[in-house]
Amino acid sequence: MKVLVVGANGQIGKHLVTFIQEKEGMEARAMIRKEEQASFFKELGAETALVDLEDDIDPIAKAAEGVDAVVFTAGSGPHTGKDKTIMIDLDGAVKTIEAAKKAGVKRFVMISSFDTRRKAIQEATESFAPYVAAKHYADEWLKDTDLEYTIIHPGMLTNDDGTGQVKIGQDLDIEKVPREDIARVIVSTLENDATIGKEFQVVGGNQSVTDAVKST
Amino acid sequence: MKVLVVGANGQIGKHLVTFIQEKEGMEARAMIRKEEQASFFKELGAETALVDLEDDIDPIAKAAEGVDAVVFTAGSGPHTGKDKTIMIDLDGAVKTIEAAKKAGVKRFVMISSFDTRRKAIQEATESFAPYVAAKHYADEWLKDTDLEYTIIHPGMLTNDDGTGQVKIGQDLDIEKVPREDIARVIVSTLENDATIGKEFQVVGGNQSVTDAVKST
Repeated sequence: MKVLVVGANGQIGKHLVTFIQEKEGMEARAMIRKEEQASFFKELGAETALVDLEDDIDPIAKAAEGVDAVVFTAGSGPHTGKDKTIMIDLDGAVKTIEAAKKAGVKRFVMISSFDTRRKAIQEATESFAPYVAAKHYADEWLKDTDLEYTIIHPGMLTNDDGTGQVKIGQDLDIEKVPREDIARVIVSTLENDATIGKEFQVVGGNQSVTDAVKST
Repeated sequence: MKVLVVGANGQIGKHLVTFIQEKEGMEARAMIRKEEQASFFKELGAETALVDLEDDIDPIAKAAEGVDAVVFTAGSGPHTGKDKTIMIDLDGAVKTIEAAKKAGVKRFVMISSFDTRRKAIQEATESFAPYVAAKHYADEWLKDTDLEYTIIHPGMLTNDDGTGQVKIGQDLDIEKVPREDIARVIVSTLENDATIGKEFQVVGGNQSVTDAVKST
């Protein structure tokens, strides 16, 4: 299985490409914005595709050609300018979805925010709400397609070492979760077709990633 | 015909409520954010509804109860903070659309931006692109509903006195158009059911508003 990782140079993305390259029968194509980001991925033996997510759909579709799945884990993050929130977290995500369709890739894994429902937008702080709204509309766009999607809603992301153990569910209380463990959840999701058409929250916990993903 | 004007206190909105109140058989309900904005509309004999567009769908739906049409002409404008672009131009618009559905109002007129197609997002300047993207997604959301919509794409808005004459079409060159004339186009659109399911651009021109709207 070849996987296009959009946002490969991000903190989840780097863990993800690393894990994919370690997996038998899986390989990654890292979509990156700058040539100088390539060496990290080349050292892992991964392919790279140089595309700016603010470009049009076609170059993204070209990067997606011949892969079996697309993972969207790009993000401006909640603390960048709000112009990037709409251009990357919403428009970049939608263009990636459309690119997957164009390239004939059916499987799509979206890394979303912990809660992107209407209520979460309304209850978010004024500075966080635009990010939640952007992720909401990206998720809605994906759910309205015929793609074989899974939407992963991580809790408060940390750079702590992963434990390989998480808690997965719906309507969880928000808790911390290492980015490294989210990357493991993504790999496990790609390996488990029962996750297709589903969305779930992930926080730190004490169930193995494999078992937790199976339980969705 | 009773019309809920969302964004009534805006520059187009004030002209629009004025024209609606002057029309035989038409009356406006002005949706406004602050109580002190009410006097302008009360003097015109229009109803008012006090709702913040950043609130949830329910209060907007309540404001839409019993009207025959909703006009969305609220806008953060292209030069406010990009947080407001997503919260008002996109999320405010979508909540208004959902509110119309909830209140059982079928007719919906959206005041969009001159060109909200994918190409326009890609070709916009970095500072303008988030606004175009927000309007793009609001328009897409509306077109995906069963509402009887019309999407109006005005050219460069000015505060010049209206002339009552415009040019309407698809793929026009962008030119100036007074906000007052856009308000006239909205009234004419509400009076003309042949505009349902259509979208068109409006710039300054030399055809009467009534004839131009008929030609869509």
